[in-house]
Amino acid sequence: MSDTACIQELRPRVNTYLEACCKRHSQAGASGLLGEAMQYCLLGGGKRIRPILVLACCRTAGGQTATPTSHNNDDPSALAAGAALEMIHTFSLIHDDLPAMDDDDLRRNRPTCHVKFKSDAVAILAGDALATLPYLLIHREIQDRTLAGTLVTELSEATMKMILGQVYDTEGAFPADVTEPAARLTLLHEHKTGALIRCACRMGALVAGADQDTLDALTRYGQAIGLMFQVVDDILDETQTTEQMGKPTHKDADRDKLTYPTVHGLDASHALVTDLEQQACTALNHLPASCDTNHLLALANYFASRTR
Amino acid sequence: MSDTACIQELRPRVNTYLEACCKRHSQAGASGLLGEAMQYCLLGGGKRIRPILVLACCRTAGGQTATPTSHNNDDPSALAAGAALEMIHTFSLIHDDLPAMDDDDLRRNRPTCHVKFKSDAVAILAGDALATLPYLLIHREIQDRTLAGTLVTELSEATMKMILGQVYDTEGAFPADVTEPAARLTLLHEHKTGALIRCACRMGALVAGADQDTLDALTRYGQAIGLMFQVVDDILDETQTTEQMGKPTHKDADRDKLTYPTVHGLDASHALVTDLEQQACTALNHLPASCDTNHLLALANYFASRTR
Repeated sequence: MSDTACIQELRPRVNTYLEACCKRHSQAGASGLLGEAMQYCLLGGGKRIRPILVLACCRTAGGQTATPTSHNNDDPSALAAGAALEMIHTFSLIHDDLPAMDDDDLRRNRPTCHVKFKSDAVAILAGDALATLPYLLIHREIQDRTLAGTLVTELSEATMKMILGQVYDTEGAFPADVTEPAARLTLLHEHKTGALIRCACRMGALVAGADQDTLDALTRYGQAIGLMFQVVDDILDETQTTEQMGKPTHKDADRDKLTYPTVHGLDASHALVTDLEQQACTALNHLPASCDTNHLLALANYFASRTR
Repeated sequence: MSDTACIQELRPRVNTYLEACCKRHSQAGASGLLGEAMQYCLLGGGKRIRPILVLACCRTAGGQTATPTSHNNDDPSALAAGAALEMIHTFSLIHDDLPAMDDDDLRRNRPTCHVKFKSDAVAILAGDALATLPYLLIHREIQDRTLAGTLVTELSEATMKMILGQVYDTEGAFPADVTEPAARLTLLHEHKTGALIRCACRMGALVAGADQDTLDALTRYGQAIGLMFQVVDDILDETQTTEQMGKPTHKDADRDKLTYPTVHGLDASHALVTDLEQQACTALNHLPASCDTNHLLALANYFASRTR
């Protein structure tokens, strides 16, 4: 299965589940204007990288989604965990796009939430709701209380890190002992982007009931591709057009924000991508021989070579 | 024990626990500027009504906090649940005070978060962190996975309602079939204020392992005092000064927002407070005779007659 094939198989499944989620939980306060704003943002495209990683890691670790051909045999817990992560990711984008934060009008080639609904308040509250619903979702959809509790802990820990990363990014408020631009950059992105991607891989392993070695290997894989994802993002922000990316580009450099190309240069950034892809693949070598790592190898390659 | 005595006993205990919480979970992304902003808002006074209700309802329902003299015998789960609720309440205030929402500079006689830290972004992110940490807190502090799961479900459901109430309040976006001002007012406040107070009472009962009848009775009590709390708030906003309240008053009426005094008049609002206090007390009659309801009766009276 090629990289695109794996994503092409999983993405529609994630989207179908997210749509069903919105219907099933509309009573949870998500009706009317609030629900409309939540759904506009949650269902409006998106690469679905995090839920895809949950499903792919669950397969690799031997979860119920292990058979590529068993299209209707996804572990419902993996889908719920992935949807929860996607909601957190979406909430972070909505708040990040606000005038008080990055002030972006365009996301996924559509107006951002506060632009679409002509109200910063609606965007703040839709973000708040998408920061809350994941915890309700996990406990409602996952019958195994121990697993649900573990997933809630993983998700809330990763979300706290992501928020801290946003503080580093927006306010430049780094810890006093981290002064070098390169060290700040790594810390920033391990938090802002890396934490949720790493969490996706861990959640997939946890849903599959993986042993500690498998969990550790998939954690290292997630750590590497999480950082790699952001290096590629920085490279694309520098080299691509707004039309190609579906969102404004060149903004970070214009604002003197720390990015991989500005700190390390474009060539070194490309080399870092190659290195991180290699780290991700090496991590997978530590999995039991029975694990099928093809999906995850293909995904690492896809994330390393994506152009949007 | 008089009303103030009950609150005077419990409030310092809640405050001590919240301070310990902030220290214990500072690794969870709450260090540096983010942690400072979170703690400024969370530890900066506040009536602590919700955690006090969790503890008082836990006592009444026969939980480990049942003996008034056992000062160090609080059920740790009740304290954790109360702290989680107080964090959600604080997050809602931080976001509500933003220029994009109610645009308030003063809260508890101190500058609001975005004013203090001269950054709307910091306030948005501190609110986001306080919307997330409760779920981590519950699962870290409460060993019983089933109880933790139940509390997370209760908390996230109530938070979704609170957020929906904010949408009603800020955007006036009521359901199409609710057109009468009086009906809108009730719906608004059952969501915006009532849901978290009702949740506090339910959490206390659930921590105590209450049976269904006890849970139902405390839910009705919480429902009545939750609405009553907001009616009193509206009356105070109309009749008190900024100095007395520690926050700007007369703002709701000036903005043509729905309030009990503007919809029903001051006299009818006072009568409603009396009626809701009576409803709360009547609900307690349905508890088993072994339950000591003195605290809850005193709290209902305190909430009905408070002047700030």
